[in-house]
Amino acid sequence: MGKYCFGIDVGGTTVKCGIFSVEGDVLDKWEIPTRTEENGCHILPDVAETVLAKITEKALNKEDVAGVGIGIPGPVNEAGEVPMAVNLHWGYVNIAKDLGDLTGLKVKAGNDANVAALGELWQGGGAGYKDMIMVTLGTGVGGGIILDGRIVAGTHGAAGEIGHAHVDDEMEEACNCGRHGCLEQWTSATGIAHLAQKILDFSEEPSLMRRHKNISAKTVFDAMKEGDALAIQVGTEFGRYLGKALAVFSTVVDPQIIVIGGGVSKAGPIVLDYITGPFREYCFPPCRDTRFALAKLGNDAGIYGAARMLL
Amino acid sequence: MGKYCFGIDVGGTTVKCGIFSVEGDVLDKWEIPTRTEENGCHILPDVAETVLAKITEKALNKEDVAGVGIGIPGPVNEAGEVPMAVNLHWGYVNIAKDLGDLTGLKVKAGNDANVAALGELWQGGGAGYKDMIMVTLGTGVGGGIILDGRIVAGTHGAAGEIGHAHVDDEMEEACNCGRHGCLEQWTSATGIAHLAQKILDFSEEPSLMRRHKNISAKTVFDAMKEGDALAIQVGTEFGRYLGKALAVFSTVVDPQIIVIGGGVSKAGPIVLDYITGPFREYCFPPCRDTRFALAKLGNDAGIYGAARMLL
Repeated sequence: MGKYCFGIDVGGTTVKCGIFSVEGDVLDKWEIPTRTEENGCHILPDVAETVLAKITEKALNKEDVAGVGIGIPGPVNEAGEVPMAVNLHWGYVNIAKDLGDLTGLKVKAGNDANVAALGELWQGGGAGYKDMIMVTLGTGVGGGIILDGRIVAGTHGAAGEIGHAHVDDEMEEACNCGRHGCLEQWTSATGIAHLAQKILDFSEEPSLMRRHKNISAKTVFDAMKEGDALAIQVGTEFGRYLGKALAVFSTVVDPQIIVIGGGVSKAGPIVLDYITGPFREYCFPPCRDTRFALAKLGNDAGIYGAARMLL
Repeated sequence: MGKYCFGIDVGGTTVKCGIFSVEGDVLDKWEIPTRTEENGCHILPDVAETVLAKITEKALNKEDVAGVGIGIPGPVNEAGEVPMAVNLHWGYVNIAKDLGDLTGLKVKAGNDANVAALGELWQGGGAGYKDMIMVTLGTGVGGGIILDGRIVAGTHGAAGEIGHAHVDDEMEEACNCGRHGCLEQWTSATGIAHLAQKILDFSEEPSLMRRHKNISAKTVFDAMKEGDALAIQVGTEFGRYLGKALAVFSTVVDPQIIVIGGGVSKAGPIVLDYITGPFREYCFPPCRDTRFALAKLGNDAGIYGAARMLL
């Protein structure tokens, strides 16, 4: 076991990088651009170069480095292979082998949402726990399932894809996945804004939300904090869908804690207030004391979790 | 590692017992009564006695016995402790310690539904796989989640309690758990019979089901096999609720295979026919090729799974 490990989070435009002590302290973090041209063939060599340069810069012994953990926006199997990652312009890539050959270091790879969940478990909202459901409320709804401190990846790399749980038989609009009535259509930042617009169009009531031309989830939560009745109606619907769905997921894995992250979670504890009531109403009774927390690491969750995979 | 292990499945009236080779062959199986009097204080001593008697009868060396696995109708934590098992009249019992002291053998304990799922993974409908959701359709709906070949027990021992996933906002009748709209209210043997009766009461159409005074799930599936239109309507509703719920559960753990057991599964492959269509319609698209199978071990699943916990 080395004294340090690298955590790399590959996004569509930048690669976030960090070097950590095995205790979880971040020693340095930086970014490089993601070069997606030529089918993304430069991405792994660029990562290898920056990792090796950092080892030189910090004057580390390579034997003191436990390895490189890397999160990828796409499905990753247990062997560290990616069948396809559309945002990186990748077809099949064996990351564990290729990046291992390029760096001479041990490499572990995972899906970015799952890896971020592991980061939150290590040093964020789930610290101190080992069984967790993480929900990321952003443009879409992502998720990660951690059991006994380890990522559940799933047969098709689809474990934790809880944004695509079917929750609504009446939804007419299509989800990005092509189906109708997915959880993310009600509870993503986009979904919340959409719902707010519908409620405003339907009602004659005054609302602080009407001051904004383009309504965002932030507009809605800001208005809620001011006691705006229509915004509270939006939050109630949002919380009912998410709390009820989390209650269902809990009958499957019964986690210790549910951590809520993503842009929507920046509204603060008020987000949890709307979710926990419906969760406790719809959950299997022994699970009523399941804990809830907000994510803490923001955009750094990915580099933390990537590093953690090595330990 | 020994050559043999015991698998014990404690029910409310009988304790099923088996002795297995580590390869999974059953060498002998038998039953003893479950003595629930005096707060069930005789149950573990009775189990110890029958295990030790079998070791003598078979002239085994105790060193060749890997241990005793035991399934209990109640929540069991990872340390082998039961906070309470109503059907056995137990309050807190530390099974792993108490049965270990009584037998001088290593003991592992688990919830009976989870243990039965592990049995089906070892030698039944899930053989050859390692990630499985098992659904048991009986008087109620039980379940078990197996990931990487191991039982997921859950923080409150409630992982796999999928019969109590909330699936119906309109249900007026109460579930045994005190809430309304649980999956088991639509898909247990009782739920299917109930639904059939409702459909018969509402319709004037002739149906083979009308020949029976007391309608059971078997009546319904027998009529379906004869092409009975109202029975097919019951099966379609049943399959839509179960297939849709399994699609949601798959967004959490994305298993390789879903195994359907319990009394209802005795109707045969027709049960799967009604479930798989809705599953594929509602699942996250990459999960469409998830396999389905019927359970194979019937009432023996518990003793197989209990033995498997030791290996």
